Parts: sequence; C-alpha cells; structure tokens
Amino acid sequence: MSLFVQKYGGTSVGSIERIEAVADKVAASRAQGHDMVVVLSAMSGETNRLIDLAQQIQDKPDPREMDVLVSTGEQVTIALLSMALKKRGYDACSYTGGQVKILTDNAHTKARIQRIDVERMRRDLDAGCVVVVAGFQGVDDEGNITTLGRGGSDTTGVALAASLDATECQIYTDVDGVYTTDPRVVDSARRLDRITFEEMLEMASLGSKVLQIRAVEFAGKYKVPLRVLSTFEEGGGTLISLDEDDEMEEPVVSGIAFNRDEAKLTIRGVPDTPGVACRILAPVGAENIEVDVIVQNISAVDGTTDFTFTVHRNDLAKAREVLERVAEELGAKEVISDDKIAKVSIVGVGMRSHANVASRMFSCLGGDNINIQMITTSEIKISVIIDERYLELAVRALHSEFELSEPRAAS
Amino acid sequence: MSLFVQKYGGTSVGSIERIEAVADKVAASRAQGHDMVVVLSAMSGETNRLIDLAQQIQDKPDPREMDVLVSTGEQVTIALLSMALKKRGYDACSYTGGQVKILTDNAHTKARIQRIDVERMRRDLDAGCVVVVAGFQGVDDEGNITTLGRGGSDTTGVALAASLDATECQIYTDVDGVYTTDPRVVDSARRLDRITFEEMLEMASLGSKVLQIRAVEFAGKYKVPLRVLSTFEEGGGTLISLDEDDEMEEPVVSGIAFNRDEAKLTIRGVPDTPGVACRILAPVGAENIEVDVIVQNISAVDGTTDFTFTVHRNDLAKAREVLERVAEELGAKEVISDDKIAKVSIVGVGMRSHANVASRMFSCLGGDNINIQMITTSEIKISVIIDERYLELAVRALHSEFELSEPRAAS
Repeated sequence: MSLFVQKYGGTSVGSIERIEAVADKVAASRAQGHDMVVVLSAMSGETNRLIDLAQQIQDKPDPREMDVLVSTGEQVTIALLSMALKKRGYDACSYTGGQVKILTDNAHTKARIQRIDVERMRRDLDAGCVVVVAGFQGVDDEGNITTLGRGGSDTTGVALAASLDATECQIYTDVDGVYTTDPRVVDSARRLDRITFEEMLEMASLGSKVLQIRAVEFAGKYKVPLRVLSTFEEGGGTLISLDEDDEMEEPVVSGIAFNRDEAKLTIRGVPDTPGVACRILAPVGAENIEVDVIVQNISAVDGTTDFTFTVHRNDLAKAREVLERVAEELGAKEVISDDKIAKVSIVGVGMRSHANVASRMFSCLGGDNINIQMITTSEIKISVIIDERYLELAVRALHSEFELSEPRAAS
Repeated sequence: MSLFVQKYGGTSVGSIERIEAVADKVAASRAQGHDMVVVLSAMSGETNRLIDLAQQIQDKPDPREMDVLVSTGEQVTIALLSMALKKRGYDACSYTGGQVKILTDNAHTKARIQRIDVERMRRDLDAGCVVVVAGFQGVDDEGNITTLGRGGSDTTGVALAASLDATECQIYTDVDGVYTTDPRVVDSARRLDRITFEEMLEMASLGSKVLQIRAVEFAGKYKVPLRVLSTFEEGGGTLISLDEDDEMEEPVVSGIAFNRDEAKLTIRGVPDTPGVACRILAPVGAENIEVDVIVQNISAVDGTTDFTFTVHRNDLAKAREVLERVAEELGAKEVISDDKIAKVSIVGVGMRSHANVASRMFSCLGGDNINIQMITTSEIKISVIIDERYLELAVRALHSEFELSEPRAAS
C-alpha cells in the first residue's frame, strides 16, 4: 500500500473555493487507494493578520505567546479541509501539532522537530481515514505550543513522511516544479523531471525559492522522495531524490541559479598573519550579518592581502561600519564596497566527474565580455560574482552553453 | 492569599484597545497582591466569522471539526492578553483548554466539564504568574478538542474557580450587575448588591440574560461566590452567593423577571384519564419542542379537563400541528392557541417564609385590571401569564408594590 504525504501552502488554501479544490485533489488520490496524510499552511494573509494584531500590542511580541497566536491559522484550515473531505464522503480527522505530538525543542518561533508520535495517525490510516495535520507547529516536552518559523509547513510534511515511511512527500505550491533557471530570465528554461537533494540545496540557497532549505535537508537526511507540484495546474512536477547514478546519464549541469540581493566588501592591504580571517569576520557575525561568498587570495610581496566577502544588500551599511573599525585595528589600507553586483552559479552533480566545466563556464562568460570579479567553487557548484548589469546576459549564455533547454537523457 | 478568577466576555476583548483595557484591570488586581486566573472569550464577531466559514463548506458542519475550528477564537485572545500583561511588566502565561487539561466528555459543541488538572496552574500562581485560560473549550480523554457551547466561557470561569478553590469568580460583562428588573421597562430598577444562586437561576431562566444558567448552577453546586461586574464601568457589581439567612434581613421579593417570547396552547375537553398529561406532552417533546409553563386544572363534571402549556413562539406552529394530531387521538374537543401573551414572575427566597405574597401579587395586578390567564408557582417564584399588551404595566406595578426601588436592608 502506498502512503502519500501532501502539503498545501497558504495560496493553495487561501479561500473556501481553494480549500474545496484541495479536497478534490486529496479525494482523488484517496480514491486511487493511497493512504493519505495532508499537511496544511494557514490561509494566505492570515499569519500576517495575526502578527499584525500582536505587534499592535508589543513591538517585539513575546515568543511563547506569539506561537500560541499564529498556530491558530493552520488550526482553522485543517478543520475546514476535514469538513470538505467529509462532505465528499471521505473519512477525515484533523490534528494540531500538539495532538499528533510533533515534539520540538522549546526555541519558540523557530523550533526544531525532535520526534513525532505516529501511533494515532497509523490507527487512523489503518481505518481508512485521511489524516489532516496542521503544518508549521508542534509542542515542546512541557506541552507549550511551538512553531517552526516561516515556511515550516514544508518541514512538517517531510518530517511526517519520514516518520511514517511514506512513499513520497508531495509539496503542492504555486509553481509547477523546479526549473533549469528562472523562466522570467530565460524563455526556454525547462522544468526538471528529477533533481538530486544536493543540487536542490544549491539551487534553493542560491535563489530559486521553491522549497524551504530545511525541508530539503531533512528530506535528504531521511531519504524521503520529495516532489514539487502545482496546486493549480496538472503535471508531474519535479522529483527531488537521491543521486542514483546507475539509472540515468547525469547531465553535466542541472541548472543556473542567481541572486541579485548581494553586496561586496573588500578590506585591502591587511597584514597577512594567522587568524586574520577570523579577526575580520567575527565582528561581522557578532552583528548578526550573514556572510555568503568569501574570497582571500595569496598575499602580495609586501606581506599584505586583500580579503573580500559578500553580504545581503540590506546589511551593507552596517557591515561597512564594522569593517572600517576592523580595518583601523588591523592597520589595513582601506575598505571598499560595491552593491552593483550579482551572483551567478551553475549547479549539477554531473560536474563531479567532468573536468573542464569551470573553464567552459569562464570561457562562455568571457565570450560575452563579462568580467568575473570573484569565483568560488564546491563539488557540485561554481559561483561567480559579476557586475549586475550583465546578470541576464550571463544566465542566458550559460543556459545555452550547457544545453539546458534540451530534455535530459531518459531517466 | 486571595485568588480571583476573572472572566471577560467577547465584547470586553473585542479589539486591541479593549484587550489593553482588560490588561489594565487584571494588572490592577495583581498589583494589589491577588493571585489571578483570567478566562477569556473570543473577540466579539470572531466565533460567528468562523462558523460562517464552516457553513460555506457544510450546512451542518462536522461537530468534531467545528470544535477544532471555533476553539481558535479564544486561543487568539489569550495570547494577546498575555502579551499585554508582559508589556506591563507582569509575568503571564496562556493556556488552551487542552493545555490545562480541562477534561470534558466527548459531546462535541456542547461538552460538559468532568475534571480540571490544576497542577500546572498552581505552579504558575505560586511563581507569581497570571494564568490566562481560553474559555469555552476543553479536551476529551482522547485529546480531541471540545467546546462547551455558546456562553461556555462563564462555565469555564466557575469550574476553574471551583477547582482552584478561588476566593471569588468575577464575571466581567457589558452590564454592571443584576437588576431588580429590566431598567428599560422600569426607570427605577435598582442593581442588587447580592442575590442567591436560586434567585439568580429563576431570574436567568425567566429572561434576565446576564449569566449562563449552567455557570450559575455550577457555582451553586460548588459554592463558588460569583460576582457580575461591568468591564466598562466602575462598581462592585452583584455578588451571587449562598443564602446566608443569619447575615441579612431577606426582602420578600428580589426581582421581577419577564418573558415575551412565549405562546400558549390549550387542548380542551380531554377525557381525564391517568397518564393523559404524558400522552399530550410526550409527542411535543419528541419534536424537540421545549415546554415551559404547564397548567392542568381539576376535571369538569363531565370527566373532561383542559390542559394548557406554553412553548417558545418560534415553535408554536409545529407544536400546534402535533397537538391537533394528539387531540384527534384522544377524542378531545379542540385545540386553541395564542401568541399574544407574556410571562411575568416575582422571584425571591424571602417568599418562602412570608405568607400572602401570592395574594399581594394578584391583588396588585387586579388593581390595574390585568387579567391573569395562568398561574404557576415554585418555592421562590410565582409566574403569571397575561395578555402581552399589559406586560410593561404589570412589571412596573409589581416593582412598585414590592418596593424594589428602595435599597435592601443592609447586607
């Protein structure tokens, strides 16, 4: 018997009409004989409405009470969907995070799941009942309501699929899958039928915002096949699964990711002594500024080096302030910054076994006279920082260079 | 140390401003050194909004899911009030019915409280924390969310006060207490400082809609002193407590209740055989029609009798239909009905020990030429059915006859 966990986001349950449409989809899967667990977000807009109420009282609302408040959003949708399923003649039963014992730590508003008690769900599934679970929420071991943070419903879906050893976790959203790159930039961008967890992680963290990163990590760790599909259109979506080398010929590159939100900072002429990287970055981290790309080249003949990193554009002013202070302490030459940059990356497990992918990328960009300012690489990803004016051009050139518009070899 | 349970209704927490005002009141009590438990309803309008969502899906929504849905209303207000208390520097912690283990039976949408686990609340109270509990809701022994039905927050307040052996249960509402009669009918109607549970029950069931009857019954059973006060005005409200004869000189009559919603049905010339009352009323009850006043006089010389009772006006047509059928079966003469009637009652534990209260009532009404159509009596209440045109006149005459505008003897 196959068991599917289906997760529907806020847009998918944003009105009574849409909840009825979700009920149709769930009922259709159930009618095919599949055991069904459904995870729901709050109706779109509802979580923001609740946060707004709280902020009218406290600028920084108490985290424990915030979780009590916002967790009501999903509680509403699970009740309504269960009603809609019963109306269609299907047995259904709704559960809050606390009721199915989604046990988390007590980090309110950003809790992490520790354990799920599946006994009650198993009993319902065995009785042919559709189990409808509130996403995004749990309880700590004292019974306090917790939430997993924004987008946490994806994580709930994957965690339930892992605990119940589900056949597949299906994430229904408003896009119909994962694309080789953003179709708004490249017309011929193609939906991928399959992608590996690692590739998806690189794609997600680089700006293809389809799935919550934590959910993908979780799915990879517990080997839960994850499928992204559209609530509003038909189609098989994209299956995110383990890298199964035997079964398919890997393409070299799976997709092109990019990000326009970064800014670059360089501290020039730093005396290159051991521990200098830490002395530069620790004060930045202490201000809660996240650093993305970091590049340090070998020292110049005078024993100094240049150290460059990127941060989110919103953090540039604060980061620069910190860095000016650090530069003075270290006796560095100067601090320069630039927020007119963009990051472009090629991602693919295939590049592990193919040499020359990097040089092919650089020569392609060079062919269009795009200057590369920084380069970083990992096993399955190569990222470059370029002038933001050339972003679209670079993405289109690379998409074409690696033949991403062509269907992959059969999988 | 005194412990107060304060319950605030939907109007009292109907907006952020009002929740802030409730926080001020609670904080003031806490600042006086009282231990505080607060029970809240949903923001006014919220429960109806949720019911409306459900009814867009199912005409008769599934009761279990209905409880999951509507219980979110109180969950929102407890979180917001706890935030408002913390903003004021008071420690506060919110709990759903499930979290403080308000254990009920499994009669969804109209569950009854069976037991409350006070351990966690005691711990919080001992630590100086204000405990904020969602009214109207609980869980059954399988952990399913239940609700107590409309107005159930009063019951939650009283049940918590009983379990915690509270000094007083204070019900904050939009009226400032219990009056000798409706001030809209009698200008000089006076707020009662005290009233007994029994009197309050008679007043409530007769139409002075201040408190939920079940809450008053519950308070009487567990001897929880109950105080009704206004959220919006200062004042000591009305204390509902045991009849303490020693402490005060009872007035003969405490208040005048009335009801315009009834209709009267008479079945005439019924053969007066044993069991005839049951043969008349059982079919009415079988149609879920509630019967209020019942009067049967001794039989006439021909061995037949007339049997009269009242029902809610909305049920008149259905009741008459049932009664026509019964009349035919029993060989009765005819069925007549009248919906232009009203019920007026005098209520007071004092009448137990005073003769002639009834004759004083009847002579007062007779003095104004008001014809009495039916009479029923209990130990602490006398009710008459009259033509509805004379209702206001009757209430005013009786209010004056029993000197209800005068303050009671010192209590």
